[in-house]
Amino acid sequence: MSWRASVLTLFPEMFPGPLGISLAGKALANNIWSLEASDIRASAIDRHRTVDDSPSGGGPGMVMRADILAKAIDAASPKDDPRPRLLMSPRGMPLTQKRVRELSSGPGVVIVCGRFEGVDERIIAARRLEEISVGDYVLSGGEIGAFVFLDACVRLLPGVMGHAASGLDESFSDGLLEYPQYTRPQEFEGVPVPEVLTSGDHAKVAAWRRSEAQKLTAVRRPDLPGPKGGKKA
Amino acid sequence: MSWRASVLTLFPEMFPGPLGISLAGKALANNIWSLEASDIRASAIDRHRTVDDSPSGGGPGMVMRADILAKAIDAASPKDDPRPRLLMSPRGMPLTQKRVRELSSGPGVVIVCGRFEGVDERIIAARRLEEISVGDYVLSGGEIGAFVFLDACVRLLPGVMGHAASGLDESFSDGLLEYPQYTRPQEFEGVPVPEVLTSGDHAKVAAWRRSEAQKLTAVRRPDLPGPKGGKKA
Repeated sequence: MSWRASVLTLFPEMFPGPLGISLAGKALANNIWSLEASDIRASAIDRHRTVDDSPSGGGPGMVMRADILAKAIDAASPKDDPRPRLLMSPRGMPLTQKRVRELSSGPGVVIVCGRFEGVDERIIAARRLEEISVGDYVLSGGEIGAFVFLDACVRLLPGVMGHAASGLDESFSDGLLEYPQYTRPQEFEGVPVPEVLTSGDHAKVAAWRRSEAQKLTAVRRPDLPGPKGGKKA
Repeated sequence: MSWRASVLTLFPEMFPGPLGISLAGKALANNIWSLEASDIRASAIDRHRTVDDSPSGGGPGMVMRADILAKAIDAASPKDDPRPRLLMSPRGMPLTQKRVRELSSGPGVVIVCGRFEGVDERIIAARRLEEISVGDYVLSGGEIGAFVFLDACVRLLPGVMGHAASGLDESFSDGLLEYPQYTRPQEFEGVPVPEVLTSGDHAKVAAWRRSEAQKLTAVRRPDLPGPKGGKKA
């Protein structure tokens, strides 16, 4: 059984989009994972195919209705579906590589993409939606967040990446940003590759890289555990 | 002059992708912004169209060459181009709504999408690339990060969104997650809309929403300034 993603969206034509190309696209073609995008609007119950209404208590924007979403979720994911159900939302817990790893090693996911001012709170409890945020910025809807999440998961599925993945992943696990990389040509616009990297001294190379990674992390991401030995949130 | 985005990528066929649909797509059709995706491989200088090489000093994966990237960047963005140049990278500064706001009020951006194990460090200084990370997870390349960044920027361009945007944006600015939303039907699977929201008492509604937003933020995001009065990084 391949890893199975079901996406509920008002824009099913956005999928697979970028996930149909490159690494994720090849894995999709090879049935390492599957992707099904359903139109939430198909669950509307009036002839205008309405999915939203104005917020109770007033305020700007529109809120997606719990009853319409429930119908859409139940059609894509029956009660005994073992897959976790996610809601892409700026209110969610920040997505981490750890959560990506956990979810990519399960049976797949059901992803609800919010739009407008949000979704009716009652659907979150009623269908046990896990709210996930991809970052502290505002997107026009959950679809781009779904791309982020799925791309991050799919590259970790068995058979998708070779050995090349390991460096970056470990870099995140040990709480340091990655060290600077260099390659040929030996000189670029008058700047040579740092001598230590062409010394052939593996221990020196490793020490230099660790030191550079620590310096970079201290400047850019003092919140990461690496340079201080603290714990990452 | 419309806001202008130039994307350098190994997968130009991924663009506009999701950005050609919905809000960003309408704005693209209305010339509120423009998007041009160039193939980095077109700047290769050998007949195999090589863009990468193995890391100096050893290690897994491949590194994108500085000379090839320089040629690609210079073709898309001449020296007098006023647009900032971004490199989507997990080593970058985390993207914030503040930075989105700043960059969306400028002339546009040039975005370099990394792939493989990273790019040769020398190109970052030589072309003054601003490294930006969309979150603490690993993606298969910079393209999905570029979608995130562009979607966040485009929705803030004048004429793209109506009034509806304001609520969410302010929510992030004051350092609190958004309060729970409700809409019709009045009762969903036995659960009513909270009474206060249908009371018609605007002051009570505002106080309830603020209190709910504070509770949610304290549980999910104690790192945000809202509940503690601290400063956001």
